[in-house]
Amino acid sequence: MSAPASLLEPLSRIERALERSITAQATPANLADAMAYALLAPGKRVRPLLAWHACVAAGGAGPESLPACVAIECVHAFSLVHDDLPAMDDDDLRRGRPTLHIARGEAMAILAGDALLAMAFGELTDGRLSPELGVALSRELFEGTRGMIAGQVFDTLGDLPDQLSALDQVRLIHASKTGALITAACRMGALCGLRRDDPGAAQTFEALTEFGRHVGLMFQVVDDLLDLTATPEHAGKRTRKDDAAGKRTFPGVAGVEETQREIARLRSAAVAALEPVQARAGVLRELIEWLAARTK
Amino acid sequence: MSAPASLLEPLSRIERALERSITAQATPANLADAMAYALLAPGKRVRPLLAWHACVAAGGAGPESLPACVAIECVHAFSLVHDDLPAMDDDDLRRGRPTLHIARGEAMAILAGDALLAMAFGELTDGRLSPELGVALSRELFEGTRGMIAGQVFDTLGDLPDQLSALDQVRLIHASKTGALITAACRMGALCGLRRDDPGAAQTFEALTEFGRHVGLMFQVVDDLLDLTATPEHAGKRTRKDDAAGKRTFPGVAGVEETQREIARLRSAAVAALEPVQARAGVLRELIEWLAARTK
Repeated sequence: MSAPASLLEPLSRIERALERSITAQATPANLADAMAYALLAPGKRVRPLLAWHACVAAGGAGPESLPACVAIECVHAFSLVHDDLPAMDDDDLRRGRPTLHIARGEAMAILAGDALLAMAFGELTDGRLSPELGVALSRELFEGTRGMIAGQVFDTLGDLPDQLSALDQVRLIHASKTGALITAACRMGALCGLRRDDPGAAQTFEALTEFGRHVGLMFQVVDDLLDLTATPEHAGKRTRKDDAAGKRTFPGVAGVEETQREIARLRSAAVAALEPVQARAGVLRELIEWLAARTK
Repeated sequence: MSAPASLLEPLSRIERALERSITAQATPANLADAMAYALLAPGKRVRPLLAWHACVAAGGAGPESLPACVAIECVHAFSLVHDDLPAMDDDDLRRGRPTLHIARGEAMAILAGDALLAMAFGELTDGRLSPELGVALSRELFEGTRGMIAGQVFDTLGDLPDQLSALDQVRLIHASKTGALITAACRMGALCGLRRDDPGAAQTFEALTEFGRHVGLMFQVVDDLLDLTATPEHAGKRTRKDDAAGKRTFPGVAGVEETQREIARLRSAAVAALEPVQARAGVLRELIEWLAARTK
């Protein structure tokens, strides 16, 4: 399923904002180059698109979410670079190209990842946003990043709560590793779009948070399934690596059919969460369908 | 030279604030444990002490700088963890103990470092500070972190401007790698202490910035000298490693005597920078002497 035009409409502005953000980090050139390699690599920009369209669903126009869009994509790019490192998932291929440590060396990959994480917070504190919004967005970004790192620890190094069933352990990993940053993207977008005098602001914010939780889980369950079924040529990265690494995945624990049912459940829950913002959430509903049906 | 009591007076409060900050990051336990291993390791706490005393010099009481103190030490701790990694400086020993990747594995060291960096921004955006101060401090922390990472790239991976003399290349590395975060510490402390109605606020801020620049350079030049002359037992880390790694150091380029003259020059410049805040800068002057004469 190709993405509907309304969904991708902000994409060129998001790409330009990403490019500008790197140009502002021009020193030293080899560091900026490595950061650009990671940040500007072809990608679906799922998180910035979620932020932009959550901003619209909250009553905003969209462009006021651009600093948040860039900040979230910086954190996402940083996490990919560090996750691909030899001591972590040890991946050579990402988005169809050599991973950063293969292309520029491991030291540069560590440092460029660090720089992208710091830069995410720089994007939110450069004077374009009100102090209140800058602090609120930074807080959300921190929470999303913290959850994501916790998920990576669960996924890579264990220490999961024993009393959880195997499936709930997978859900906990997914909710942290992928869900936390996707939820943050939705909440950050919402914060950018909400008007202070909107009497329904709290309800809208809660609805978009719930939406983010379901979409985040769904995204990762679909990812698990694609890892099992896609070819590396199609996915642009090594596949079946979860299996090889002994990682807990949804289909690994529950089988393919139950995984498809879980995706359907999460899709319905995401749609239902949008109820309170019904009128403004048309594109977010399209986004759910696109992510549920994606094949890479 | 042991540190004067007035200088170390805030130390127990800083240590308690560091401990509390880790306790607040309790999940998952193995991640929090790794973060604590790095953040709570015995250290001089130079950067938090600079922030606290710069706050006092700017007219504050001191304790209002604690969120900034913790944030800066988090960034410092993160940078040590990542710098020690095999792909970077490959150090086994830090502050007299095994480095984090030796003690907890490389994947955990990468992730705990990332988490400490994110947490630094979390400390500044958890609602204890006004939005204006939270954003201003986050901005300074970002600038300091960006400079530090740039310095690490210069130091480890080169790409220094060709037209600079060897000594100016060393100065550029020092000003970024060490100076940027120390300057940020002084500026952040000053921001915490300044009163908005102080007519001399801009001058005070500028003075403490200048002070930070000189102290930061001095700190690193002293470090270079100690790396050359101290024993590992005394320093708590591998020494003469700059030489072994072929790194550009001040004594390596200019010799020991010229290095001692440089330290004296930077010490005088730091003292002179404090002129506008003379009356409130007694402890910062003691701090300069302590750092100039330190033997570890």
